[in-house]
Amino acid sequence: MHILIIGAAGMIGRKLTHRILADRRVSDREITRLTLADVVDPAVPPGAATAIETRAADLSLPGVAESLVAARPDLIFHLAGIVSGEAEANFAKGYRVNLDGTHLLFEAIRAEAARAPYRPRLVFTSSIAVFGAPFPARIGDEFFTTPLTSYGTQKAIGELLLADYSRRGFFDGLGIRLPTICIRPGKPNAAASGFFSNILREPLIGREAVLPVSESVRHWFASPRAAIGFLIHAATLDLGRVGPRRNLNLPGLSATVGEEIEALRRVAGDKAASLIRREADPVIERIVSGWATDFDARRALALGFRAETSFDEIIRAHIEDELGENI
Amino acid sequence: MHILIIGAAGMIGRKLTHRILADRRVSDREITRLTLADVVDPAVPPGAATAIETRAADLSLPGVAESLVAARPDLIFHLAGIVSGEAEANFAKGYRVNLDGTHLLFEAIRAEAARAPYRPRLVFTSSIAVFGAPFPARIGDEFFTTPLTSYGTQKAIGELLLADYSRRGFFDGLGIRLPTICIRPGKPNAAASGFFSNILREPLIGREAVLPVSESVRHWFASPRAAIGFLIHAATLDLGRVGPRRNLNLPGLSATVGEEIEALRRVAGDKAASLIRREADPVIERIVSGWATDFDARRALALGFRAETSFDEIIRAHIEDELGENI
Repeated sequence: MHILIIGAAGMIGRKLTHRILADRRVSDREITRLTLADVVDPAVPPGAATAIETRAADLSLPGVAESLVAARPDLIFHLAGIVSGEAEANFAKGYRVNLDGTHLLFEAIRAEAARAPYRPRLVFTSSIAVFGAPFPARIGDEFFTTPLTSYGTQKAIGELLLADYSRRGFFDGLGIRLPTICIRPGKPNAAASGFFSNILREPLIGREAVLPVSESVRHWFASPRAAIGFLIHAATLDLGRVGPRRNLNLPGLSATVGEEIEALRRVAGDKAASLIRREADPVIERIVSGWATDFDARRALALGFRAETSFDEIIRAHIEDELGENI
Repeated sequence: MHILIIGAAGMIGRKLTHRILADRRVSDREITRLTLADVVDPAVPPGAATAIETRAADLSLPGVAESLVAARPDLIFHLAGIVSGEAEANFAKGYRVNLDGTHLLFEAIRAEAARAPYRPRLVFTSSIAVFGAPFPARIGDEFFTTPLTSYGTQKAIGELLLADYSRRGFFDGLGIRLPTICIRPGKPNAAASGFFSNILREPLIGREAVLPVSESVRHWFASPRAAIGFLIHAATLDLGRVGPRRNLNLPGLSATVGEEIEALRRVAGDKAASLIRREADPVIERIVSGWATDFDARRALALGFRAETSFDEIIRAHIEDELGENI
């Protein structure tokens, strides 16, 4: 089986690569070839037994999608895209990369399928940004997509294209709306959502972190480990069980910042929790107040997708996966 | 006020042109210039007092959108597109005209606005084809868009683009999901929905019409007259009342074929009703069984959109507008 990961250099792409190389198979199919693509050359993990090639290329430029698809990968993970803040700051770039890039990929698959029978599985990472406030306290599987960002708009359009190209038989697509990933590994960043991870990741290694919102703020989370589980499950799921509605709210954990902190206290003690410094930021408070707080993801749950059910689990997964089980 | 109608040669475009020329104003603004564009040269109604120019051009070709927008129309009606059956039969053409054409228009307005302040009103005709079965007996304003045709997909994408370009201030857009238009004037056509109009229009002029489905089939209707009313209302509505959710289910009449026939009998007598010949067509039965039957369009109603509330009204509107009040 030949797997293509587009957006392989990002956090999720790198973790997915490691998981695939460790498993050496997806479901019952052995992985014989892995292609890693991104705008920057993705790093090849050392010592991999599988044949790996890397491609540094921008999917939104002419010919790139065709060249990636020419080798007829059996399974394509489309994780590439520019993030919400950048898509909002640079309108044209967001549409070029997130919309045109996705459409060019789908068209390249259609063109390849026109040459000779070809119908890969395609897994597309969408986002809960396809929803825009106001919404119900719990967003159900049939709630409408009225995004309030250009990024959310581009993801919602990608979902529509994915469903139509799948319906027409050009590929077997599944779009998965990832919850906010927490705990994001790495350094604190300036994203408005960064604090959700910062206030756990930093205290776990003895560093201070800033909490810019009140403890009552509620949001929707899954760990990086759960996200990789979603991608692998989406790659192997029987699509006959999914039907024509190919874009799913995934399960996650609805929790408040206060619940995050209590879990940190339980797992890592009072000293860790005391490293969180409250410093209200009205701008971030306002942005976050427009975000979804909870989902009723019953379709995805019935299809076998699983996420953590407590922040204790999310923190323990981080300690195991990122800190070598040491705190 | 300069008005641009794109798709002016179609049935709705021609009726809208007549209405605008008859009114000579939209709300309190006098119409000083009218541009009619379509892939075929739109007919200019004789004797019009307003300055009219026509343009035969394909919106999806390079430079066409820019040239239409260069004159900075204050109000743009975007009615253009290829219909459901053709978009399904010709995948690439459907995406080129209905998606690329719409996106090119929006981009041309954005480019024009970047040169000097410009923010036209833009009214986009969407469709109930953005919904795909299964759906509830009445589709509410917050039901999700999971189209089952490429046409419906292209309309749903146009809606998302319209909302985002409006949110960013490039134009003031409103997308309106028209019910099935009935009674369509003209000749019987082969569209799967054609019979809904045929079984009224033909008997009203003494001709036989074929009914291919059972009388229990229910669907969602508005007259051509109501459709023109929707467009004018959308052009003048205070968008502050609409907010960021710019795509509306419009009001209509939910009625069965049996109710259509009873209204025909009341308005035009038993002889007219007896001209309907039952000739079951399982293919059309199956297509129509996947269509929406009823909507709860409370948002549009609260915003002042109005449709007929009985088939008697729809038939009378046809007799007045198309038959010179003679039957």
